[in-house]
Amino acid sequence: MIISAPRLWSTLMDLAELGKFCEGGVNRQALSEEEIQAWRQIITWAEEAGLEVSTDPMGNLFIALPGVQRGLPPLLIGSHTDSQPTGGRFDGALGVLAGLEVLRTMVDDNIRPERDIIVVSWMNEEGSRFAPGMSGSEAFAGVRAPDDVLACRDRSGTGTLGDALVYFLSHFQNLPRRPLGFSPFAYLELHIEQGPELERCGIDIGVVTGIQGKKTFRVVIEGEAGHAGTVPMGSRRDSVHAFADLAAELFRTMKSIDDSVRFTIGQVTVTPDAPSVIPSGVQFSIDLRHPDSEILDHCGRETERIVADQRGPCRFVLTPLVDAAPNRFSEELQNRIMDAARRCGFSSMPVLSTAGHDARNIVKLCPGAMIFVPSRHGVSHAPEEWTSAEQVAAGAEVLAMVAREIAEA
Amino acid sequence: MIISAPRLWSTLMDLAELGKFCEGGVNRQALSEEEIQAWRQIITWAEEAGLEVSTDPMGNLFIALPGVQRGLPPLLIGSHTDSQPTGGRFDGALGVLAGLEVLRTMVDDNIRPERDIIVVSWMNEEGSRFAPGMSGSEAFAGVRAPDDVLACRDRSGTGTLGDALVYFLSHFQNLPRRPLGFSPFAYLELHIEQGPELERCGIDIGVVTGIQGKKTFRVVIEGEAGHAGTVPMGSRRDSVHAFADLAAELFRTMKSIDDSVRFTIGQVTVTPDAPSVIPSGVQFSIDLRHPDSEILDHCGRETERIVADQRGPCRFVLTPLVDAAPNRFSEELQNRIMDAARRCGFSSMPVLSTAGHDARNIVKLCPGAMIFVPSRHGVSHAPEEWTSAEQVAAGAEVLAMVAREIAEA
Repeated sequence: MIISAPRLWSTLMDLAELGKFCEGGVNRQALSEEEIQAWRQIITWAEEAGLEVSTDPMGNLFIALPGVQRGLPPLLIGSHTDSQPTGGRFDGALGVLAGLEVLRTMVDDNIRPERDIIVVSWMNEEGSRFAPGMSGSEAFAGVRAPDDVLACRDRSGTGTLGDALVYFLSHFQNLPRRPLGFSPFAYLELHIEQGPELERCGIDIGVVTGIQGKKTFRVVIEGEAGHAGTVPMGSRRDSVHAFADLAAELFRTMKSIDDSVRFTIGQVTVTPDAPSVIPSGVQFSIDLRHPDSEILDHCGRETERIVADQRGPCRFVLTPLVDAAPNRFSEELQNRIMDAARRCGFSSMPVLSTAGHDARNIVKLCPGAMIFVPSRHGVSHAPEEWTSAEQVAAGAEVLAMVAREIAEA
Repeated sequence: MIISAPRLWSTLMDLAELGKFCEGGVNRQALSEEEIQAWRQIITWAEEAGLEVSTDPMGNLFIALPGVQRGLPPLLIGSHTDSQPTGGRFDGALGVLAGLEVLRTMVDDNIRPERDIIVVSWMNEEGSRFAPGMSGSEAFAGVRAPDDVLACRDRSGTGTLGDALVYFLSHFQNLPRRPLGFSPFAYLELHIEQGPELERCGIDIGVVTGIQGKKTFRVVIEGEAGHAGTVPMGSRRDSVHAFADLAAELFRTMKSIDDSVRFTIGQVTVTPDAPSVIPSGVQFSIDLRHPDSEILDHCGRETERIVADQRGPCRFVLTPLVDAAPNRFSEELQNRIMDAARRCGFSSMPVLSTAGHDARNIVKLCPGAMIFVPSRHGVSHAPEEWTSAEQVAAGAEVLAMVAREIAEA
């Protein structure tokens, strides 16, 4: 079976038009108008191929190729169609569209697998509009209660994910609705590496060994507003002053722990945010990752300790959000991927995923693994994100071979 | 002449309804829908009293009581009707409405001054929507070129002050338009103290000796976006990391210079502002004040030096915006205010204004002075801003007495 590399590339480029904000740039946040357009496009492609499309109460999208024995647990292949606000063309979209390409190829070749193969697009992987992300796969795998996911508020605090989901699904009222969750036979996800290792080593296929652990926090600093010209600095409760000291110490400490720590403050909101008003409040996000679970826990405790130790006139409140331990993928599936790459004539190597993926959640239900293709300069979450048509096709081809073998197992 | 304390208080409370966002809180930013409502209300009051209302090309509002000799340079009394996004009921509004009350009282008492008395509300004093502020008085006094003021962009970068002004003035097409600028005989401004001195000393009237100097800057930090999980910290160009280090050093240095330094970072914008994206950019405001011009200059040079000295992977660009030296008000007018307070039976003391005011600009055209009334706990730019009806009336009464004397001079 050979997938159609030109068809896969053209679907990737067509989908990148939906949410395009500059050359290469995609802003297609979860449950947005742009993601409605993306779903419409993908559903059209799937229905043209005669595939079965459905959704579930959490806004996950499913595209099934029916197997001979429909009672067998299905093979699940997935990723996500949402992007960061300044994202690129490949992150997430590649995994969904490569899965679709595998199904279209099997339809074209009149291959009917033993078990269903279902391609899924998980709701809100990125978590930029509604934090934290991976909402659809967390609810699907029972990692997080659906009500908890639905109650998540957007940044402005005005709308819930639940409200946005009702609005989103109102555009797909004719789509069959399946219950939330089922037990897959196995899970596969193709993704760009989002790191420089494959490119640096000149390797076609990354066999992903696991995903590094991740913790996220929200920190609120409460100070007091006042006139920038009148209140003496010694009498102020200046939340930006407190933020600068706290953030500088956090960065200093995290950098000193070890080279594999990833510590990011990506979102900062200042209140009331006016040049001549002493800021009364700062809210910011912490994203902390490490492949080693003990070191990750240590970093998490250090973060909590440093926030708790802050002195001065402001009040600090830290709320833990995500706490995902590092995980390892199925050895057997890793071996299958390595073997398929070899038979296709591609080089491969084991790589650790430093980014989080929905696979993290689904492997709680079944064996799972991921396939990486190179990312130019390791860049992602940016318009410069790039993987060539040949590299994309190599990943999809390996995915197709492994998927077909598993579906026959 | 006794002004009507209940009438003045009720106009203050009525105006505070326009832009009210919580008990005591006013959000009536420059050229906003809320300021359109405020102008409509003030114009109605002025026209009911038979006063002459006009505007100029910069969106300053003028309310004139004609004098006997209309060719004489007029006495100007003013302040502003715009507020901070989380402002209170008194800052700015008091000065305009007390001026209006002085005119209404003279009309009621059939007093016709020798020269015109004109009450003015200056456009965009606060500078929260369009920074820097004091736009109307700067253009009026020739401190800043009108085209420069009109080209000022709002925070999002999408709209100019000029566009907002055209829209704003389109609601007042029947209002007579006077040319920009004229030479007043003198300028008076009544304002809340925005500091704790009068309250602490139990004094009714502050005779303002001058305004401390102020410099403002915009700093842009340019980094590079990337995935929070994949890019090693040593390879990042993280703009929030750079901001934390820079801001912490600025605060440390400024606090070490002397107790009278006021250094504020009130506005911070992070790009793209998503939890799992390494931030590519930070833009922030600096507001720096000191009563001593040499120390202010030293602080300004230190700010520029510290930004220029920043090492690391990000790029730093500092743009000076406002550079206003400390200024002293007319000794003769200060004496008149002190004398009027004594004759009205109020206590008074000299105070320095640590906040900036439009008076700073108008004293370039004519002698000027300011009258302060106490601010509870020194709080301003906040819903808790408070000055009692008796304190407000005392200030307006002294203003009326001084204004009438000057208008007869």
